[in-house]
Amino acid sequence: MAHTEIQRSPQRPQVVIVGGGFGGLRAARALANQPVDVLLVDRNNYHLFQPLLYQVATAGLAADEIAHPLRAILRGQDNLRFRLAEVSGLDLTQRRLFTATGEIRYDYLILAVGGVTHTFGIPSVAQHGLGLKTLEDAQRIRSHLLRQFEHAAHETDEARRRELLTFVVVGGGPSGVEMAGAIGELVHMAVQRDYPNLRLEEVRVILLEAGGALLPALDATLGQAAVSALRQKGVEVRFGAAVTAYDGHRIQLKDQPDLPAATVVWAAGVRAHPLLDALGCCQDRLGRAQVQPSLQLEGHPEVFVIGDAAAALDAQGKLLPMVAPVAMQQGEHAARNVLRVLDGQAGLPFTYRDPGMMATIGRNQAVAQIGSLRLRGFLAWLAWLGVHILQLIGFRNRLLVLVDWAWQYISYDRAVRLIDADAAPAGIMDAEINGSRG
Amino acid sequence: MAHTEIQRSPQRPQVVIVGGGFGGLRAARALANQPVDVLLVDRNNYHLFQPLLYQVATAGLAADEIAHPLRAILRGQDNLRFRLAEVSGLDLTQRRLFTATGEIRYDYLILAVGGVTHTFGIPSVAQHGLGLKTLEDAQRIRSHLLRQFEHAAHETDEARRRELLTFVVVGGGPSGVEMAGAIGELVHMAVQRDYPNLRLEEVRVILLEAGGALLPALDATLGQAAVSALRQKGVEVRFGAAVTAYDGHRIQLKDQPDLPAATVVWAAGVRAHPLLDALGCCQDRLGRAQVQPSLQLEGHPEVFVIGDAAAALDAQGKLLPMVAPVAMQQGEHAARNVLRVLDGQAGLPFTYRDPGMMATIGRNQAVAQIGSLRLRGFLAWLAWLGVHILQLIGFRNRLLVLVDWAWQYISYDRAVRLIDADAAPAGIMDAEINGSRG
Repeated sequence: MAHTEIQRSPQRPQVVIVGGGFGGLRAARALANQPVDVLLVDRNNYHLFQPLLYQVATAGLAADEIAHPLRAILRGQDNLRFRLAEVSGLDLTQRRLFTATGEIRYDYLILAVGGVTHTFGIPSVAQHGLGLKTLEDAQRIRSHLLRQFEHAAHETDEARRRELLTFVVVGGGPSGVEMAGAIGELVHMAVQRDYPNLRLEEVRVILLEAGGALLPALDATLGQAAVSALRQKGVEVRFGAAVTAYDGHRIQLKDQPDLPAATVVWAAGVRAHPLLDALGCCQDRLGRAQVQPSLQLEGHPEVFVIGDAAAALDAQGKLLPMVAPVAMQQGEHAARNVLRVLDGQAGLPFTYRDPGMMATIGRNQAVAQIGSLRLRGFLAWLAWLGVHILQLIGFRNRLLVLVDWAWQYISYDRAVRLIDADAAPAGIMDAEINGSRG
Repeated sequence: MAHTEIQRSPQRPQVVIVGGGFGGLRAARALANQPVDVLLVDRNNYHLFQPLLYQVATAGLAADEIAHPLRAILRGQDNLRFRLAEVSGLDLTQRRLFTATGEIRYDYLILAVGGVTHTFGIPSVAQHGLGLKTLEDAQRIRSHLLRQFEHAAHETDEARRRELLTFVVVGGGPSGVEMAGAIGELVHMAVQRDYPNLRLEEVRVILLEAGGALLPALDATLGQAAVSALRQKGVEVRFGAAVTAYDGHRIQLKDQPDLPAATVVWAAGVRAHPLLDALGCCQDRLGRAQVQPSLQLEGHPEVFVIGDAAAALDAQGKLLPMVAPVAMQQGEHAARNVLRVLDGQAGLPFTYRDPGMMATIGRNQAVAQIGSLRLRGFLAWLAWLGVHILQLIGFRNRLLVLVDWAWQYISYDRAVRLIDADAAPAGIMDAEINGSRG
């Protein structure tokens, strides 16, 4: 195939944005009607609404309901083109990116490549666990969870059946809490309705946290509320449980007996996308690029790194969390700074306006911390629903998610209980770009 | 894993139904509240509404909207169990089926394993073409179609770009006609909106038919109406075009010049599932089991074969078509005959009540033949919509399909334009059970 660089106006600088997640998309939009050509590169042709991935993984929502084609989102923007490609490397000196279908040159670069599941160098977990960063991950978890029930339904060995029916989530942050709550609801519903021969007392959903609290980023009272809510839903919560190995059948824990389980969802860590390693400098322990307050790379004022890929500090010198609001605000800020640099001005420092954090534990249960406000229970759950519906992109996706949520609420059912015959077995690929398998 | 046969009441005969498609599902339901234990075996955990597969393949509907969990459908039926397994062989003498997770014994067997794509011994088509029998097939086609546009968008070689933008459907039956019409709508919409740099005149959608007419099972006037409707939508229709080979780039045709095309959807043939080959007898040229008028296998009154897997004759000695209504009516009939045989009576001969046939060519265009009635255009299209919505299983699926169709109608858009990074490349697997990849 003869591929060349995409056509561009010779007189306008080319801003290349790598990654169409929350940060990259905001940056692209902020550059509309500006005197630059924008090229958005992603290895997927869609924007993924990651906060609802766990609902796809637990058969509550369909994959298409939380993914929206990037070309559809950016249709109206005349100075923008999209390229479906995975960036495999970069050359800061020559200002170019490498892809399987040719090089891409840039004048300004915004790296918004996001994060990948991080197993902290436990290869057995990477081999047998399940990550939750991509749409493929979520669909793989869904098929895996449902397969365990199908296997258990005709398994006569009790020990093996209990192993099949033990679902472990590792990590007490928002992802782990939401995942554990949702698995709890799925399995109790599924067992009671779809598998009348299985016994509910053989099913266990366990949330393992190495530290001493859930949701450590939130107020301690909310973390305790999350523990109570999970336990009410039948989820066992264990603290001080550090996973050291997993062979697909037994979890090994530090200073605790082994735990037999056919399912381990790893929500205990995220690191920056491995493309950052190609920078050859200035990475923190999670692989993130250490950026200047203006989000620029030192020595490369034409390169910006944002979102989960960046180790940016707030005004107090504290690392900003790897969450969507940081990425979105940084995307807009990086776009503004590109225009400033283009005008011969220095980039302005980024300041984060924290909109608060929330996590849902399932039906009628959530916790939220917005400024000095602390919410829990039904009210927090309603707030969570509203915020997530509003943040989804596209009228169709909002409507379908609403329909599915209403359906679940009324029927106590999870509709998308489909096993994909092509779904790959468990295993976490630690090389992903903007939420896609590498 | 220690697996055993599923528990069953010793005093009640076990009826095993292989395949949860239209025929198997009807048979299972018809045996509710009867003095038998029913075991439904399928390699998928869902019933697939195959008539709308082409809409999943062309980004109009999501996969979950046309698939419904079998356990959910059959929840209320006390004498029924489900087993997720692929049947790899059978032993008529010992009355048992083989699966990867153990044997299954039966007293009565209803084989409803359906059909697979049939490439008539053209291995290059099997290797590079795309079939449309399973949910995975449909999602693979969707990703493949969208990828061609992404590649074409930055392809500077005109010949290669035209090859990428040539979409060929082979087969002038209902599947081929519907697929060609839907691809025509998708590509014209997509090019105009999402790929402003591509030129519409470089895009071709071609329907190849080896014979001299479309929809040969219908009245000739309806076939001609389909040709006109397709041509109005920009689809080229070619008759007398017999494909002899395809290497992924060029289609070779008998007595016609080669046709460069990066996409070939093969809708030209279906044969019975290869499990039928294990019968070791009485197959017709499409691999179907030649059954008695009662749908029983000669010499094995305890074995029934229905739907696409059966070569059943009507009262006039004509082979019944491989369509859903035949399978559904045969499913009910086989269930009735099982109960008769159980009572010591002979099976009754099956008679087919033809409800008519219809095919849609896209927006506002369909043809239908119901008894002596011939419909075309908008009225036929409305009839088609109504029939398909009503036949879908489950309130949620009906509602979501309605939402998506209304959305498409209003917006001239196809919402599910997502490329699955994990989607396998083109290629037809000729070993499938009840619509699933083998």
